[in-house]
Amino acid sequence: MSGEAKTMESRTIKIAILGLGNIGAGTVEILRRNGGLIEQRLGVPFELVRAADLDPARAKKLELLPGVFTTDAKAVVEDPSVQVVVELIGGIEPARSLILAAMENGKHVVTANKALLSAHWEELVTKAEEKRVSLGFEGSVAGGIPLIHTIRRGLVANRIQRVTGIINGTCNYILTRMARDRKPFAEILLDAQAHGFAEADPALDVEGIDAAQKLAILVDLCFGLSLAPGAITRCGITAVTPLDLAMAEELGYRMKLLCSAASERGEVEAWVHPALVPISHPLASVDGVFNAIYLEDDNVGPSLYLGRGAGALPTGSAVVADLVSAARDILSGAVSRMPASGARIRSQERGHLRGAGDSRSEFYLRVTVLDRPGVLSAVTGVLGRHGISIASVIQRGRGDGQEEAVPILVVTHEASFAEMTAAMADVDALSVVKKGSFLARIIPGTEDP
Amino acid sequence: MSGEAKTMESRTIKIAILGLGNIGAGTVEILRRNGGLIEQRLGVPFELVRAADLDPARAKKLELLPGVFTTDAKAVVEDPSVQVVVELIGGIEPARSLILAAMENGKHVVTANKALLSAHWEELVTKAEEKRVSLGFEGSVAGGIPLIHTIRRGLVANRIQRVTGIINGTCNYILTRMARDRKPFAEILLDAQAHGFAEADPALDVEGIDAAQKLAILVDLCFGLSLAPGAITRCGITAVTPLDLAMAEELGYRMKLLCSAASERGEVEAWVHPALVPISHPLASVDGVFNAIYLEDDNVGPSLYLGRGAGALPTGSAVVADLVSAARDILSGAVSRMPASGARIRSQERGHLRGAGDSRSEFYLRVTVLDRPGVLSAVTGVLGRHGISIASVIQRGRGDGQEEAVPILVVTHEASFAEMTAAMADVDALSVVKKGSFLARIIPGTEDP
Repeated sequence: MSGEAKTMESRTIKIAILGLGNIGAGTVEILRRNGGLIEQRLGVPFELVRAADLDPARAKKLELLPGVFTTDAKAVVEDPSVQVVVELIGGIEPARSLILAAMENGKHVVTANKALLSAHWEELVTKAEEKRVSLGFEGSVAGGIPLIHTIRRGLVANRIQRVTGIINGTCNYILTRMARDRKPFAEILLDAQAHGFAEADPALDVEGIDAAQKLAILVDLCFGLSLAPGAITRCGITAVTPLDLAMAEELGYRMKLLCSAASERGEVEAWVHPALVPISHPLASVDGVFNAIYLEDDNVGPSLYLGRGAGALPTGSAVVADLVSAARDILSGAVSRMPASGARIRSQERGHLRGAGDSRSEFYLRVTVLDRPGVLSAVTGVLGRHGISIASVIQRGRGDGQEEAVPILVVTHEASFAEMTAAMADVDALSVVKKGSFLARIIPGTEDP
Repeated sequence: MSGEAKTMESRTIKIAILGLGNIGAGTVEILRRNGGLIEQRLGVPFELVRAADLDPARAKKLELLPGVFTTDAKAVVEDPSVQVVVELIGGIEPARSLILAAMENGKHVVTANKALLSAHWEELVTKAEEKRVSLGFEGSVAGGIPLIHTIRRGLVANRIQRVTGIINGTCNYILTRMARDRKPFAEILLDAQAHGFAEADPALDVEGIDAAQKLAILVDLCFGLSLAPGAITRCGITAVTPLDLAMAEELGYRMKLLCSAASERGEVEAWVHPALVPISHPLASVDGVFNAIYLEDDNVGPSLYLGRGAGALPTGSAVVADLVSAARDILSGAVSRMPASGARIRSQERGHLRGAGDSRSEFYLRVTVLDRPGVLSAVTGVLGRHGISIASVIQRGRGDGQEEAVPILVVTHEASFAEMTAAMADVDALSVVKKGSFLARIIPGTEDP
C-alpha cells in the first residue's frame, strides 16, 4: 500500500473549468476549502490547470495561479494536459461545441447545463459513449441533491414508475412567500429579485421552462425516452393568486409548482404545472428555495430526496462529486465504466410520450365571474357538458348584486387534461366570465404507512 | 460499439448468495423480475451460480437451477467461478470468516450485515483494500434509501457536520401507532409482532441496539472514526408512554427514536435516544416503518433522504445496486476504484469520541410523584441544584390529596447529558418520587427557509 500511495501522491488530476460565474466560483471554492478532504477520499489532489471566461475580472476575483486563466475556451478543450473539462458556461452555444470537442479529444466532461442536456441529450451521450469518456451532470437537476447519482447508481436495480418533484427553487420561494405574506405574485417576484432569488428576466423560472428542461433530463434517465423540453406540457405560476393559495390551504392542500413524469407500459406522461399537494404528502412541507423529488419504484416504493436545488455551493458540490467520479475512473484504469445514458444496451422499445391531453387527475379551477344570479349554474353547466364531475364548488360572492367580479372555485373529480382545458375554454367564452380562468392539478395523497 | 456489445453479451457476472432468508429471497426476486432492465443498464446479465443456506427448504422455494444450491458456504467462497459474493447470513460468525475468505480469494463482496460491519469495520475494509476488491454495504443502513451511495459518492466533496436520523423502522412504527392509538408500548409491540413489523425477540430494535450498529457505520463513513457500537450512548423506547407522546404533541413536537452523530474539530458525538422533534422539522412527519436521514454539510447545507428502511425488496434493491457497482468495476477493468473505507489516504487525526455526558441539548423529563403539596418544589429544587434551568413544568396533579402517582413533565433549557442524568438520579432518590423517570432529548428546529 505504501508504494502505491507514493506513486499516487506524485500525481494530480488535471482539470479545467469553462465559465467562472456563480457555479464556477463555487466549484473553485469547494476545491480549495475541501481540497485536503477530497484528496484523502480520492488519493490525489485536483489541479486546476486551465480556466476560461470572457471576463478577466471574474478570474481576477478568484486569484487563479498565473497561466491558468484564458479567454480562449477552445484552447482549453484542446490542451493535452487537461483530463477533465467542467463546462459551466450555460446555454447551447458555445457550450455544445466545446463539450463535443473536449470529448473528441478524449477528455471526461462534467456539466451543470440543463438547457444543453435537455436539447441535445442524444448527441452528447452518444459522443461520450463513442469516445469512452464519462459525462457527469449531477449539477443539472436539483443542485445539491445527488439525484442523478441516486437514480443511476443507488436505485439502478429498480423500475422507476413515477417522479414527482419541486425542482425550481425560485417558484417555490415565490409560492411560499405568497402564501405566508398573502401578497400578489408581482410584488413577491420583485422582492425575490431584490434578494437574488429570482433573475432580472424571471421567465425561465416562473413560466416553468427551467423545470421542463430538468424534467426532460429526468425522463431520459428514468424512462430512457429522449424528449424535447418543449414537448412537455407546461404551465408556470404567474397566474397564481393569494386567493388560490389560501383556498388550497382551506381544502387541505399546499400549492406547488410540480414536475411529474410517469411511465406505464411504455407510455410516458410528463408535465410541469401548479398543483395542489395534500398536506400530508412529504412534498407539501417543502418550503422556500428547497427542492425535493419524490420517486416511486417497484422495489423501494416511495422515496424522497430534499435539499437546496441551486446556489454556488450546492451546485458546486454536485460538480465536484462528478469530478471525483471521473477521477476515480482515471486512477483505477476504468474504461467506459458507466455509459453517459445510464444504459449500455439501448432498449428497442424506448416508449413514447402520451398526448398531453390524456393525463388524468383531479383539478382545481378558479373562474372569475360577474356576481349575478345564475352564473354558478352556467359555469357548472359547461363543466357538466364536458363530462366533468364536480366534487365541490365554493362561490365567494358579495351577494349585493353589484356585478363585481367574484371568484368561483371548483374542485373536480378525476378528468383528463384535454377535457379540462376544453371545458375551461368554453367557460371563458361565457359572457359573465372574465377571461383567464386558472387551472391547477391535484395530486393524490400517499399511502398510509 | 456493436463489436463491444457482442463481446459483452457473451459474458455474465457470476455471483453467489450466502443466506437465503428474507433479504436473500428479495435479492433473487429482483434479479429475476428486473433482470432484463438490469442487463440493459449494465450490459451483461448476472448469473447466480451458487447459493448457500443451512436450510434446503429455502432453496427449494426459490426454485434455483440444479447445481446452484449447497449447504456448504465455505465451498462457495472458494469456488473459482464466483466473481461476487453476497453475504446475507447476518450476525458475526460464520459471516465474518466467509467474507474474509471470499476477499482473500479475490472476490468482490456485498453485504447488508450491520452487526458485523459495526463490530469489525477496520478488519473488513483493510482486507478489502489489501486484496483490491470492493466491499458494498448499501443494505446495512436504511434499507432501500441509497444513503451510503449518497455519502460516499454524491456528497463526496462535502464535510458532513451532522447526521440525524430515524433508522429503525420497528421503533418508528411502534411510536407512530402509540401516538395514534394512545395505547401503551407493550400492547402496540404485540400488534407489531403479529403484523411482522417486530421480531419475536424485539430487544435489538426497541433497545436501540440495531440503530446504534447502523449509527456506528455512519460515523465511520462520515467522520472516519471507527466506533464499537457499544461506545454509543443509547436508550431505547420501552419506557415511552402514550402520555409522553401526547405531551410532545401538545408542546409542538413529535417523539421519535433518533440517532445523531456530529463532528466538530475532531470531537465526535454519537447517541441513540428518544427525542422530541419540532413539528416543522422534516423528520417529525416521518411515520410508520419509514426511515429518514437528515444530513448537514458545509456545501449543500441540510438535505433529507426518506424511504423504506427494511424489507426484502427495499434491502434487496440496495444489495443489487452494490452488485451492479462491483460488476461495473469488473467490466470496465477498474482495479481498486473506491476503497471500502471511502478514504484512500487515512487521516492521521481520526478524531475521537466525546464523553457521552458532554453532549448538550434541551431535555424533556417525566417524573412520577406522589400527589402531595411541595413535591413540585422538591423536584425542581434538585434540578436547580444541578444547574439545570427549567423552561416549563406541567403538573397533571389530581389535587385531591389522594397521594396517587401523578406525572410532572419538565422541559429544560440546554444542559449536558451528564448534568441531566445526575439530576435524574437525585430526583429518583426523593422519597416522593417513584423510580423510573423518563428522559428524552429535544432537538432544535431547522433554519427558516
